[in-house]
Amino acid sequence: MDTLFSNATVVTMDPSMHVYTDGFVGVTDGRIAYVGKNPPPASEQPQKIIDATGMVLMPGLINCHTHLPMTILRGYADDYDLQTWLTEHIFPKEDRLDDRCVKAATLLGIAECLQFGVTSVSEMYDHVDAIAEAVAESGIKANIARGATMFLDEGFDFETFPACRELVAARDKWDGFDGGRIRIEAGIHGEYTSSYPFWEAVSEYAVNEGLRMQLHLSETASEHQSCIEKYGLTPAQVLDCHHVFDVPVTAAHCVHLSQEDMALLARRGASAVHCPVSNLKLASGVADVMALVKAGMNVCLGTDGAASNNNLDLFEEMKLAALLAKEHHHDPTAVAAPAALMMATVCGARAQGRQAECGMIQVGMDADVILVDFTRPHLMPCHNVISNLVYAARGSDVALTMVRGKVLYAGGKFPTIDLDAVVRELAEYAMPRVFPPAGNSDR
Amino acid sequence: MDTLFSNATVVTMDPSMHVYTDGFVGVTDGRIAYVGKNPPPASEQPQKIIDATGMVLMPGLINCHTHLPMTILRGYADDYDLQTWLTEHIFPKEDRLDDRCVKAATLLGIAECLQFGVTSVSEMYDHVDAIAEAVAESGIKANIARGATMFLDEGFDFETFPACRELVAARDKWDGFDGGRIRIEAGIHGEYTSSYPFWEAVSEYAVNEGLRMQLHLSETASEHQSCIEKYGLTPAQVLDCHHVFDVPVTAAHCVHLSQEDMALLARRGASAVHCPVSNLKLASGVADVMALVKAGMNVCLGTDGAASNNNLDLFEEMKLAALLAKEHHHDPTAVAAPAALMMATVCGARAQGRQAECGMIQVGMDADVILVDFTRPHLMPCHNVISNLVYAARGSDVALTMVRGKVLYAGGKFPTIDLDAVVRELAEYAMPRVFPPAGNSDR
Repeated sequence: MDTLFSNATVVTMDPSMHVYTDGFVGVTDGRIAYVGKNPPPASEQPQKIIDATGMVLMPGLINCHTHLPMTILRGYADDYDLQTWLTEHIFPKEDRLDDRCVKAATLLGIAECLQFGVTSVSEMYDHVDAIAEAVAESGIKANIARGATMFLDEGFDFETFPACRELVAARDKWDGFDGGRIRIEAGIHGEYTSSYPFWEAVSEYAVNEGLRMQLHLSETASEHQSCIEKYGLTPAQVLDCHHVFDVPVTAAHCVHLSQEDMALLARRGASAVHCPVSNLKLASGVADVMALVKAGMNVCLGTDGAASNNNLDLFEEMKLAALLAKEHHHDPTAVAAPAALMMATVCGARAQGRQAECGMIQVGMDADVILVDFTRPHLMPCHNVISNLVYAARGSDVALTMVRGKVLYAGGKFPTIDLDAVVRELAEYAMPRVFPPAGNSDR
Repeated sequence: MDTLFSNATVVTMDPSMHVYTDGFVGVTDGRIAYVGKNPPPASEQPQKIIDATGMVLMPGLINCHTHLPMTILRGYADDYDLQTWLTEHIFPKEDRLDDRCVKAATLLGIAECLQFGVTSVSEMYDHVDAIAEAVAESGIKANIARGATMFLDEGFDFETFPACRELVAARDKWDGFDGGRIRIEAGIHGEYTSSYPFWEAVSEYAVNEGLRMQLHLSETASEHQSCIEKYGLTPAQVLDCHHVFDVPVTAAHCVHLSQEDMALLARRGASAVHCPVSNLKLASGVADVMALVKAGMNVCLGTDGAASNNNLDLFEEMKLAALLAKEHHHDPTAVAAPAALMMATVCGARAQGRQAECGMIQVGMDADVILVDFTRPHLMPCHNVISNLVYAARGSDVALTMVRGKVLYAGGKFPTIDLDAVVRELAEYAMPRVFPPAGNSDR
């Protein structure tokens, strides 16, 4: 046994939601080898014991929708309306990003994820090679999609279209990297930013290569309505006509889905990523989590990018998922704490196709484990560990983050990320490139 | 000069919202003696220099509605409807609290406040003597009200009514303690839990003694509607008829106020305490902050008690105040970051009648100052310090909390609170008393 966590409150997230008080969790070769209320047999002598007294041990959280490189735009243009924000502020800066900027900003984002207890992300952006490099170096898990846009007047050929070439190259180079720690997924930025030849070709490629898919879906009312005006169908319906949901899809936002959309997506096995903070901040609305679940969809959580949040703390999304459902349905019993915690763990793993591998503390699963420090004043007393995790804790209470048995964050330190070097790279290269000093905007 | 903070990003919250990069703030005799972008003159030799490189220095936050002793009920009964929650879970436990339990639970709550950068609270509960003792020992500022209930069939005489006697005793013993660090305020729990002889007598006492007032107002739709059915008037109107708003009132929640109520309260100089987390969690609704401000009311922020939140992190309330207004008005420009930060500082000080004393970093004001650590990944880069404070930071980023020049929290330590002793007192005395083991519930 490589590592033994002792005396932890173990929140397993297994189907019985079993919690061990003063429990023990052993890790061997990157996998969970032991879970119990007593120490493992003496024959299983651990190389290292981590005393987790006062700590909660639970599965790492899974952030199912983010754009990690957007950390560089955090707080850059807040409190604007969506169109001004995107067209005048965000897009022009994104155009200035190169691979080197993206890699540095992604590493910063991964550090934030690890610090806040996230062990796996579903990422959608461009410059996917740079993103994959950052993921590879850092040790985090990621499902990475190229979130491509494609307008009909551009013409389209899968073989030559740049975003598709990037997808194919990423799949060839990175899919399955490190025993599946990185998975490449197909990506469609959204219905409103692309068109049917692209949808069909990308879906066909995904089916043939066995890839999953990420996309934005019915995030804003105007996007949803425009689609109905254009096609006589909702975004979910029109994409379905073009076979997009033939593979398992992780659909971000899902704020304005109709009941029929939800039923359709449930039949197709798509997952809905609830992004409550981003949806509030951009005034997009509040997804009806209760209805999504009732329709049979798998509902998980995402932070979206740092520019529309402005952090990557999934604890905040858990709390808001529970709170907003109560308000939405005028019912304080809606989305109770265990349901919110499921969304951030088990349901996230399912959305990523990793449900056999992580999301629970169970023997045989990857040791994607976090410790949450329950000795601070705001987590005392502890009448109910799940309540305290969802309603009182925050990402900053995470004391240790482990992925596949390897400690990637502990006590403020990142063993796999040279944060000082990342900060230097951002300050000296990325920031001047993306935000050139006045009078120097064309260099 | 006692203390000099050097090289801080100083967010003054003064009327021009001035921010000094690499600024200096000096403290002498508990007051701010110097603010500038250069060090103070050499003649002002500080006794102690605190290097605040990488830190934001700003006014301490002001939590204008809380029930500190309810930390003991944190997470005890979540996800119930309001009536079940109150009558089956909360009230029976509150009945078991004594002064000793309240003092321990209040100290725990104060530790949480200080850790999250709160330097002043408006507190409403019973056992006010025990609360005042905890406040006195800890060094935090507090406006403390006895949140009394009184039903007509009980009969009423101000001189003999227990809650009124408690108010008078607290006023005699604690009002003005330590140069005004503690202020006693009159309290009416709510319109729906009391009646006019009480309102009139308490208001008269407040007018005569120059006390301010705290109350809950139009928190739930049913409370608001029942009042209209009973009196033909809204809660604000009926309380106004009985002179309650003749003194400055801090009115918590204000979720269901009518436009007329808002105008009336603005004329009377009342402050509205927005408690977004608690209002969502109990499914009470969302107060319309924009309308309150437009009507001319002073709007500040509160966490409410830990049992309906479940933490006392005012950073969370700031972010939600900004986010919920955007959603409420379908407008991402609503309640921009500076407005949210004002609510938590300047407007809070105004609600407490402390606007000449705190809420800004300005020479002559009390040195109620916090440092926020901006060197963590989730606060980088920093395009806009106000945005990062409101949308990305959390209470746990507070590195130091000072009240009147005295450090009350730094680096995880509480110089004025023996947290281990508090935790022991809770475990050994308060918890067994409030949550007796089964079969022993009448001891």
